[in-house]
Amino acid sequence: MLPLASLVLLSSLHWTAVLAADNGLAITPQMGWNTWNHFGCDISEDTILSAAQAIIANNLTDLGYEYVIMDDCWHAPSRDNQTGAPVADPAKFPNGIKDLSDKIHAMGLKFGIYSDAGTYTCGGRFGSLGYEDIDAKTYAEWGVDYLKYDNCYNEGLSGTPHISHERYANMSRALNATGRPILYSMCNWGEDGPWNFAQNIANSWRISGDIMDNFDRYDDRCPCTSVIDCKLPGFHCAMTRIIDFAAPVGQKAGPGHWNDLDMLEIGNGGMTFDEYVTHFSMWSILKSPLILGNDVTNMTNETLTIITNKAIIDINQDAAGSPTNRMWKRSVDEGGDLSLWAGSLVNNTYVFALLNTSPAEQTVQVDFVDVFFDQGKVYQTQPYEVFDLWQKDDEGTWGKSFGIIQGSMNVTIGVHQTKVWKAVPAPQTSTRRDYAEL
Amino acid sequence: MLPLASLVLLSSLHWTAVLAADNGLAITPQMGWNTWNHFGCDISEDTILSAAQAIIANNLTDLGYEYVIMDDCWHAPSRDNQTGAPVADPAKFPNGIKDLSDKIHAMGLKFGIYSDAGTYTCGGRFGSLGYEDIDAKTYAEWGVDYLKYDNCYNEGLSGTPHISHERYANMSRALNATGRPILYSMCNWGEDGPWNFAQNIANSWRISGDIMDNFDRYDDRCPCTSVIDCKLPGFHCAMTRIIDFAAPVGQKAGPGHWNDLDMLEIGNGGMTFDEYVTHFSMWSILKSPLILGNDVTNMTNETLTIITNKAIIDINQDAAGSPTNRMWKRSVDEGGDLSLWAGSLVNNTYVFALLNTSPAEQTVQVDFVDVFFDQGKVYQTQPYEVFDLWQKDDEGTWGKSFGIIQGSMNVTIGVHQTKVWKAVPAPQTSTRRDYAEL
Amino acid sequence: MLPLASLVLLSSLHWTAVLAADNGLAITPQMGWNTWNHFGCDISEDTILSAAQAIIANNLTDLGYEYVIMDDCWHAPSRDNQTGAPVADPAKFPNGIKDLSDKIHAMGLKFGIYSDAGTYTCGGRFGSLGYEDIDAKTYAEWGVDYLKYDNCYNEGLSGTPHISHERYANMSRALNATGRPILYSMCNWGEDGPWNFAQNIANSWRISGDIMDNFDRYDDRCPCTSVIDCKLPGFHCAMTRIIDFAAPVGQKAGPGHWNDLDMLEIGNGGMTFDEYVTHFSMWSILKSPLILGNDVTNMTNETLTIITNKAIIDINQDAAGSPTNRMWKRSVDEGGDLSLWAGSLVNNTYVFALLNTSPAEQTVQVDFVDVFFDQGKVYQTQPYEVFDLWQKDDEGTWGKSFGIIQGSMNVTIGVHQTKVWKAVPAPQTSTRRDYAEL
Amino acid sequence: MLPLASLVLLSSLHWTAVLAADNGLAITPQMGWNTWNHFGCDISEDTILSAAQAIIANNLTDLGYEYVIMDDCWHAPSRDNQTGAPVADPAKFPNGIKDLSDKIHAMGLKFGIYSDAGTYTCGGRFGSLGYEDIDAKTYAEWGVDYLKYDNCYNEGLSGTPHISHERYANMSRALNATGRPILYSMCNWGEDGPWNFAQNIANSWRISGDIMDNFDRYDDRCPCTSVIDCKLPGFHCAMTRIIDFAAPVGQKAGPGHWNDLDMLEIGNGGMTFDEYVTHFSMWSILKSPLILGNDVTNMTNETLTIITNKAIIDINQDAAGSPTNRMWKRSVDEGGDLSLWAGSLVNNTYVFALLNTSPAEQTVQVDFVDVFFDQGKVYQTQPYEVFDLWQKDDEGTWGKSFGIIQGSMNVTIGVHQTKVWKAVPAPQTSTRRDYAEL
Repeated sequence: MLPLASLVLLSSLHWTAVLAADNGLAITPQMGWNTWNHFGCDISEDTILSAAQAIIANNLTDLGYEYVIMDDCWHAPSRDNQTGAPVADPAKFPNGIKDLSDKIHAMGLKFGIYSDAGTYTCGGRFGSLGYEDIDAKTYAEWGVDYLKYDNCYNEGLSGTPHISHERYANMSRALNATGRPILYSMCNWGEDGPWNFAQNIANSWRISGDIMDNFDRYDDRCPCTSVIDCKLPGFHCAMTRIIDFAAPVGQKAGPGHWNDLDMLEIGNGGMTFDEYVTHFSMWSILKSPLILGNDVTNMTNETLTIITNKAIIDINQDAAGSPTNRMWKRSVDEGGDLSLWAGSLVNNTYVFALLNTSPAEQTVQVDFVDVFFDQGKVYQTQPYEVFDLWQKDDEGTWGKSFGIIQGSMNVTIGVHQTKVWKAVPAPQTSTRRDYAEL
Repeated sequence: MLPLASLVLLSSLHWTAVLAADNGLAITPQMGWNTWNHFGCDISEDTILSAAQAIIANNLTDLGYEYVIMDDCWHAPSRDNQTGAPVADPAKFPNGIKDLSDKIHAMGLKFGIYSDAGTYTCGGRFGSLGYEDIDAKTYAEWGVDYLKYDNCYNEGLSGTPHISHERYANMSRALNATGRPILYSMCNWGEDGPWNFAQNIANSWRISGDIMDNFDRYDDRCPCTSVIDCKLPGFHCAMTRIIDFAAPVGQKAGPGHWNDLDMLEIGNGGMTFDEYVTHFSMWSILKSPLILGNDVTNMTNETLTIITNKAIIDINQDAAGSPTNRMWKRSVDEGGDLSLWAGSLVNNTYVFALLNTSPAEQTVQVDFVDVFFDQGKVYQTQPYEVFDLWQKDDEGTWGKSFGIIQGSMNVTIGVHQTKVWKAVPAPQTSTRRDYAEL
Repeated sequence: MLPLASLVLLSSLHWTAVLAADNGLAITPQMGWNTWNHFGCDISEDTILSAAQAIIANNLTDLGYEYVIMDDCWHAPSRDNQTGAPVADPAKFPNGIKDLSDKIHAMGLKFGIYSDAGTYTCGGRFGSLGYEDIDAKTYAEWGVDYLKYDNCYNEGLSGTPHISHERYANMSRALNATGRPILYSMCNWGEDGPWNFAQNIANSWRISGDIMDNFDRYDDRCPCTSVIDCKLPGFHCAMTRIIDFAAPVGQKAGPGHWNDLDMLEIGNGGMTFDEYVTHFSMWSILKSPLILGNDVTNMTNETLTIITNKAIIDINQDAAGSPTNRMWKRSVDEGGDLSLWAGSLVNNTYVFALLNTSPAEQTVQVDFVDVFFDQGKVYQTQPYEVFDLWQKDDEGTWGKSFGIIQGSMNVTIGVHQTKVWKAVPAPQTSTRRDYAEL
Repeated sequence: MLPLASLVLLSSLHWTAVLAADNGLAITPQMGWNTWNHFGCDISEDTILSAAQAIIANNLTDLGYEYVIMDDCWHAPSRDNQTGAPVADPAKFPNGIKDLSDKIHAMGLKFGIYSDAGTYTCGGRFGSLGYEDIDAKTYAEWGVDYLKYDNCYNEGLSGTPHISHERYANMSRALNATGRPILYSMCNWGEDGPWNFAQNIANSWRISGDIMDNFDRYDDRCPCTSVIDCKLPGFHCAMTRIIDFAAPVGQKAGPGHWNDLDMLEIGNGGMTFDEYVTHFSMWSILKSPLILGNDVTNMTNETLTIITNKAIIDINQDAAGSPTNRMWKRSVDEGGDLSLWAGSLVNNTYVFALLNTSPAEQTVQVDFVDVFFDQGKVYQTQPYEVFDLWQKDDEGTWGKSFGIIQGSMNVTIGVHQTKVWKAVPAPQTSTRRDYAEL
């Protein structure tokens, strides 16, 4: 009855199940751009094509950004009276969605659309609840490659994992039935724990209420202190609040099924450069989809610097598909906290990061006993070549080596900064730096 | 299957869905009077007609108070043996409900009734569970314009949004099926989160247990610390406790579907003048229905002063229909707290308020960075003409201007007071007051 | 479909619904004796008949103790192979249950039995799940007047009020269908909130895990800090812990449907005299059923003194049927807390109590503003004649008058004591005591 | 409809229900070895046979270790195309599972297998959801004696006890239907409270997320602070964290139905000797199954010392089947805490233990009022002969007597240690030690 996951034969002896909607997509977290965070409901064919052209012009496709996603408010006031099929707003999309999709495809990009598992979309347009089959079929005819599927006005169809699963599985089945591979991006804000119930039906699922373009401001509209059993995900969730939310659920993500921390705010103006670096770093190492949410037709150098850091993107797109875990979190006298994050990459390499949410510069000793806790004692004591992924090497490539380090590192980290390092086990060498200060 | 919301075309290019029961009602929060808070079960035709006459005599209709609502205990001991139709107590209503309704209508008012989505009403009269169709039909025949629908004795039909939705949707469908527009006011005390599940089926929903005519006394009968996932809403909820309850759910309300903070206690004697000002102010800016609960045939000048403040009512009835958000809440040494609330009105105007629940006068700097946080940086720094809505101007109209203010205001606020301001972006002017003391 | 509550016409103009199983029973909280707390599974015909004789001999029937209840372990190893009917253990009950019941009735007492809404009873005997009809029918044939219905081994049939309601309503319907009035005492330990869902189907419901014969010891087997949404009621709940549990749910009880705080431990030896006085006082004013749990064939004078205090029993059996509310609770430096409880009785009289769970004597000012908070300002300031219900008057009757008091009383209360007062509005008099010290 | 528990007649007068899957197994907690903790997915016929031989060679069978359990990743990439029956990986198991099972049986051991109540196993192999009957039938044909049944990819079939019960009861029924006694070890990580719903359907149930081979490190992947209503059990749960989790649910276990605290980590290297002693001691006295998780072909003397302590194993296998209760838990200044645990054994003997999770040696007075609290006052004051089960007597047998003790003992306990004592009521004697220091 339920869609079976693709079983991908990785080698003749080792294989792994890609557990997701049966579409072979999102083997690494999806990357792209979405209209909502910057344009909201004020979109049109032109908004989207201009963005697509800017993505090409900035060579963002080379880095992996490929999906151009049209979010809410593309709709005509009502469905087709006769067929019940979805209809686009003819004023905004005079040439129709199929034409738009063709143009996006012609640029070498992929095209995404938005709907809602309820009676209405969050913007009050017609939703897909009860119309899953005709909507999926129409999207496929339009050449859609990606569906973001929201949770407003869901008629009370939530409250247990079973109820939520059934509602979202209906669209999963409908998408698979079209025969077209359509990436399925669930957006039920973490209700009923999609990290538990949606691994087989979706390529990603939002874990919380909507992001706010702000580092750490508390907002009553995002009231839960955890996403585990949150009954009011809301919105206006500060960026670092979502990082806290993500910490316990990283364990549930992997190739084909990711935790979506929400679309990026980099370039939208609510945070400083260092804060946006934190935003991009943490989304990357937590294996969130990286969906730009700014006006890509008008980007500062700072914005471009952040979103084009290939070393950081490589962490996000690493084939191991393993989100980092928070190894420790420590309160800081000045408020906020320091946290250490670490994870595995392919080929016996590792990533770790330090996040400072406090309003003061901090000096911290990062112990490899913590960084390599999951790998065991041998790993905790051996030397590594360590690369700082937010510094460029002499050739201008992201990821500057700090030589061979063993045991621990003393790190000074600025206000609201995140530092990300890659660690490669070192061959025997005499030039190692013990307890290096970086 | 489910009632579709009215789609209201606001202009040729912009439109918005009114998401509510399909009845076109409560585009702004409903206003009126209800028997319960003052009279409880001790009601009769005379009680209600006298109140209606007093509403007319005090010109309350000019301000928007229009619904006269007969709460619990209007019932005969049992339904009609033959038809199952509801029957009114012949002693209390010798002329029947239809006659009462006609008289109310003849005065230019609208008539509301009460029932319960259970086997019994809270007062032990026959409930409507299983009798939705005949009850709705009878109400329509009686000329009912409004139904308050309670939650007692619900036979365990709660516990997930789905179960609660179905029980309350049954009456929504029945009301719509009558063809008569009947405002549907759900009173399930916030169980299972009506702000999530009832947006399409009701015009308003209670968010908590019943209000107590008291500013802030803790009472064990209202034990939950939040309405999110509260399993025992209870009653005797102090007024400011309900304000705290309302803070996170304001985001879910809008035209046609409101958070109901419960009926007003102004004039019932349990609070001071300043406390009742807080009550009326906060209910208004949180876009609660404003349903008077006092004896309107016998009102003091203080009571009349509060409930007839047109400037405050205008905030409540503003067409934008956007509840204010709590921008910050700060504990106060003396106990209690200070909180700042802000929201948008139509035509690029704004409302903000300061609430002092502490037992001491407080002086506070109100920063426009907070007031206009949702609007973005430009809005946070520009000058505004600010009006105090609890002061009258030289012509005796509520809303005294304090001139042009930019950046912040220093405010002194008394014990248990709320101050409410309206802000209008100022044209260029040289007479602005920076950091004015009010 | 569901049993309708009895509608009791109290007068020609005022009437009230008795909301309970349709049996007209437990208009005031039931009183009696049960085998479990003292004898556990070690029961027989003799145990029960001896207890019944002791109840008669001690004139406990005059005070209202009338039900003699046989708890778990009366069962044969299996049901009747042919009919599926329940069978009693022939070794323990050589004359059968009907004979036992007849003997109990012949003494002027009523007879109760025990079963479980699951596959097994808590003691591992056959349960009634799926056998409701034949069990109810058999009980009726045996002359049973009372069923305590437990919650062990319920096959996962809990988790929402709806699921629990259906399971317990099945037995309610079966009992009513017998035509014999059988008091239905639900024992689902508060799961899913019976105070919300069982008002129409049961005469009482347990609110928590089983009581422990101890004043306040914490025990991991009773882990929940509240009974609202407790997922592991457990047992070994200290006596005062149950009082805390009961505070918020008193509002849900009334004639025909009571909160059961569990059977009494008075006389079982785990508490001091003052602690047992607290136990009996609080159970009484919270309108719990008063079911003795000690060996009534062997009682000390202290035990008899407590359980025969008619003034306290009269509070429990007052026709208003209104549990007291906790008006305040204050932490005490020595640990534990002080709490004030107050409620209404018939005929404009009142009860209030002070509980000291701290390990030190305390002196407290009891303000009538708190005692009469629910009644309003007039009641808070008028004089009352106050009776101490744990002191005897000159004629040896419980309830010694302290004269006329107005405003407040200063009270000194010993370790683990509870004081209970009755207040009667005073006629105009010149001999009142202001701020009396008691 | 549901499997009836075996009713075991223990004597002509006393009998007890063994409440479990209807298979008569696990009357005491099961003991054995499992591949997962040490080998993970890297298993084969050879891994398992080598372990079995080592179990025999080390005489572990004499102590009760009898089940050799093949955990996840034994599977071929897919089920049999024709029959749907499960198929083993032919590379890992060239002789098939039946052959392996026969060899295990020939050694006098029993054979266990692993599957999952979902679409996939946690390792991504085919799961049993929807294939319960054919899988159970095939296991029986293979000679399987034990099924560990996991919870990954369960399609949202959780959220209420009823939903989880039905999913797990399906396999219980299928196993029973085979006619072969197969021990049913549920592994749903405590979701929806199996201690409440699974007593009749399973022989044991896991109570939490997976154990981590670490004494007390906090890990975000095991985020719940209690297993009661935990919505994200996760994994990487530190050993002492699981002890805390187990404290409140011990009351729900008994012969045939046990709380499973997860497989042992003793010998895997993440803890010290004293920490592993704590691990083995606490698992034993909490009546967890004792399933070794180390490489039994390569054990140190320390590991063997711990897992072969017959005195501790006897506590675990005591016929009374009663988990110890935590009598108190006290925070320690240095961090961590001290806790006292006590329980009953057969024949009027008792076990009690002291656990020190703090990083410092502690001296504690252990009062018999606490140890024998459940037994009542007589037991609290009488003398006992006390045996230290982690010391050997003069003959080299575990369990050294400290003579007769009454009232209390002063105990000094080292960092992360657990001490376990057996207490036997002493005959009258003049050589008792009051307040002995041990």
